[in-house]
Amino acid sequence: MDSALPVTLEQIREFNAEMVPFCAEMNIHLESIGDGVAVSRFTHEARWTRPVDFIAGPILMAMADATFYWALFTKIGIVPLAVTNELKYNFLRPAIGGDVICKAEVLKVGRRVAYGTADLYMDGAPDRLVGHATTSYVLPD
Amino acid sequence: MDSALPVTLEQIREFNAEMVPFCAEMNIHLESIGDGVAVSRFTHEARWTRPVDFIAGPILMAMADATFYWALFTKIGIVPLAVTNELKYNFLRPAIGGDVICKAEVLKVGRRVAYGTADLYMDGAPDRLVGHATTSYVLPD
Amino acid sequence: MDSALPVTLEQIREFNAEMVPFCAEMNIHLESIGDGVAVSRFTHEARWTRPVDFIAGPILMAMADATFYWALFTKIGIVPLAVTNELKYNFLRPAIGGDVICKAEVLKVGRRVAYGTADLYMDGAPDRLVGHATTSYVLPD
Amino acid sequence: MDSALPVTLEQIREFNAEMVPFCAEMNIHLESIGDGVAVSRFTHEARWTRPVDFIAGPILMAMADATFYWALFTKIGIVPLAVTNELKYNFLRPAIGGDVICKAEVLKVGRRVAYGTADLYMDGAPDRLVGHATTSYVLPD
Repeated sequence: MDSALPVTLEQIREFNAEMVPFCAEMNIHLESIGDGVAVSRFTHEARWTRPVDFIAGPILMAMADATFYWALFTKIGIVPLAVTNELKYNFLRPAIGGDVICKAEVLKVGRRVAYGTADLYMDGAPDRLVGHATTSYVLPD
Repeated sequence: MDSALPVTLEQIREFNAEMVPFCAEMNIHLESIGDGVAVSRFTHEARWTRPVDFIAGPILMAMADATFYWALFTKIGIVPLAVTNELKYNFLRPAIGGDVICKAEVLKVGRRVAYGTADLYMDGAPDRLVGHATTSYVLPD
Repeated sequence: MDSALPVTLEQIREFNAEMVPFCAEMNIHLESIGDGVAVSRFTHEARWTRPVDFIAGPILMAMADATFYWALFTKIGIVPLAVTNELKYNFLRPAIGGDVICKAEVLKVGRRVAYGTADLYMDGAPDRLVGHATTSYVLPD
Repeated sequence: MDSALPVTLEQIREFNAEMVPFCAEMNIHLESIGDGVAVSRFTHEARWTRPVDFIAGPILMAMADATFYWALFTKIGIVPLAVTNELKYNFLRPAIGGDVICKAEVLKVGRRVAYGTADLYMDGAPDRLVGHATTSYVLPD
């Protein structure tokens, strides 16, 4: 953990438990943070798949959104009212057969808008993206 | 119901129960269809909210994606392997305090790509969009 | 012209001549305005086509962006520092063989963000979209 | 130049002169290619600016689109009928006062769809993005 960050992994996890409870419902958990970066994991569960074992698209979009939110916290601290303005998700390959890892990165934090990306891949296969997202957030005054 | 459509509401619902089970998990259900149009409802449940009662963003993105899928079926029949290529969702207002309605519309069906939009609003307030999405799907050969 | 609007067609045209001169370079001109709506035209010219007569994609994206800007002025007056945050353009059909019309519509104006759509079609064929765009703008304080 | 690529820089430039003539009209030229990568330059000209010296947004969107097209050629050869399905451009900082560099990268080439990104920055300042785009292309049979 980078002690220069304005927030710790543990602080974000406590925030999530209280303020973003649906992530646990979706089996999405924050795994690590760095400067402008966050990594999360979706733990495979049949409830969130389609036949035959395709992981539900909304799980993947949820990962991109939540993980960017957490990455943003590493830049500006925990700001609950930073809100998604828009998110585009491109589905690149079927997400099938295991856990999914999402790595989000902040590309810019401005006064009113933050922007970044999310790479999604099956655990163990970081070079074969199953999806890629970009998102802009609006920051409170 | 429009008898000229290549699919009935009941047929799509049966398909959903078997092939898109996570929609029920998210309380998202198809309500009606027309020519190139589908309307769905998210039934409010605390599990899918954030304090204080904001409906989770991923639920809204899921509605947009699934409802367009169903709208597409009214044009080409049930084609399970029509897959989302990309979806952009813009969050316009907080979704709070009730059921959400999503109305998706197909703007174009080509040989390989279909495209359309989704309007989301709180039940009873169709003129105040809480969100708007656009999406392109890739069609199988 | 709607006398209740905070701006006139002529005022926007004068603004464009001075502040958005590249639109004329691209043969893009504002044709009409309404409440939250603007309509523009690209006048066909070989310089902005590709063999064999396809109109350049950047012209179409430029139309979407500029025309939404003008539609926004009908809601908030001429605010030069309203800036595009993001724009997604989906190419739906080849734009070929004539003038292009773009109709932009404001779906929401918030305190910090405005959002809307643009429909593009060949002059005379409004039911066959050649493209569709969505865009969010950030508004100055 | 990478001799293993299916195309040379010179071949793409010849293609551009004949088939994408509007890029020269916009002062956009391909500078270099690699495996799945292309870099282009917009040469500053007052005609493509707004007061006071802001480079026109459509120039930036055009760079993203064209440069990805060229990056794609390094993967599949010159395929004129690879067409943009959609492009989202996020404007991150004002583009002002000089040449713009665009670096596009192919993240995935599938059978029917290719996807990638474009980074845009002022010449000499690669760490301060002025814009970022993502785009999906549809490939011919």
